[in-house]
Amino acid sequence: MSRNVAGPEIEHVIQLLSRLPGLGPRSARRAALHLLKRREELMAPLAAALAGAVDKIVICGTCGNVDTSDPCTICSDKRRDPGLICVVEEVGDLWALERAQVISAGYHVLGGTLSPLDGVGPEDLMIGKLIERARDAQVKEILLALNATVEGQSTAHFLMDELSDCDVAISRLAHGVPVGGELDYLDEGTLAAAIKARKQL
Amino acid sequence: MSRNVAGPEIEHVIQLLSRLPGLGPRSARRAALHLLKRREELMAPLAAALAGAVDKIVICGTCGNVDTSDPCTICSDKRRDPGLICVVEEVGDLWALERAQVISAGYHVLGGTLSPLDGVGPEDLMIGKLIERARDAQVKEILLALNATVEGQSTAHFLMDELSDCDVAISRLAHGVPVGGELDYLDEGTLAAAIKARKQL
Repeated sequence: MSRNVAGPEIEHVIQLLSRLPGLGPRSARRAALHLLKRREELMAPLAAALAGAVDKIVICGTCGNVDTSDPCTICSDKRRDPGLICVVEEVGDLWALERAQVISAGYHVLGGTLSPLDGVGPEDLMIGKLIERARDAQVKEILLALNATVEGQSTAHFLMDELSDCDVAISRLAHGVPVGGELDYLDEGTLAAAIKARKQL
Repeated sequence: MSRNVAGPEIEHVIQLLSRLPGLGPRSARRAALHLLKRREELMAPLAAALAGAVDKIVICGTCGNVDTSDPCTICSDKRRDPGLICVVEEVGDLWALERAQVISAGYHVLGGTLSPLDGVGPEDLMIGKLIERARDAQVKEILLALNATVEGQSTAHFLMDELSDCDVAISRLAHGVPVGGELDYLDEGTLAAAIKARKQL
């Protein structure tokens, strides 16, 4: 808004909200108005929740997850299979897998992918710690749940080499047609992978 | 998330963010992750900005606008035409008109529309204060910028009656085809209004 319609405090809230993903300048203004109208029920609790969480955020020293405790909620969860570690690129990937509720494993968040052009080498990712964890006799399988991108897959290859002398099975996610996906809209790579990995009925 | 992947502080932030308009449970999680990754640059400032604004929010005693000062930023702006008051339903409407930067007037926020079925009568809206303002000799015109809905228009009619013995001109927004609008997608009411108010070229 080039002309200020509200005091600087409100404009500042709008400006910060507009930096959240999914909120543009217009929806940030709508969100701010929503907060202004719900001062007691929403705005004050949100301010307190953010302030309360901000000081507690830590990176889990075991798996690289972002949480408010170290070891994190997932690493401390005794009901998970201690024999399976699911390796992901980012915390968002961990959250996505947890949302699907299809695996009850430990995780390992690399913090990105190898990218020599951007100067990201193995020492910049949590790879040393992963190999250390893989040497634990309890661990039976490492599932490389990296993105099906060039960067994700080349990182997966690098990890396979690094893990080759550990006594663990190494797996990756299946490639194929996404559930609900229409062939007409899929790329050649996905179709080729789906045909190559076709299942006998 | 039925299974918690993060500590209660983070889950609480996600839950509160998901109550903002434009953010669902999924995008609230993405927004929370964005904040967690930008603790210093975004999360802490947002917490502080919200906390700073929440205690200062006041309703302007003159116009009903929400701001951090009373009289509000708009009522205190000496560059605006003191002879014109633009009457709107909600603060969001005021912000929308300001965003368009097409009018430099004072405002009057009613706080809703008359709705006998919901028990909203004239005393529940800022109508008394509007009439008081309209009696000020400085004020020459009252523009009823209410929504083009049944509720907005019946409230506008009520206000016209109430303002009839004040010495002011009363106007309303023009009805017609929205700029950029395609006739094919417009309703009959809008087309009828656009034809009725057609302009000679």
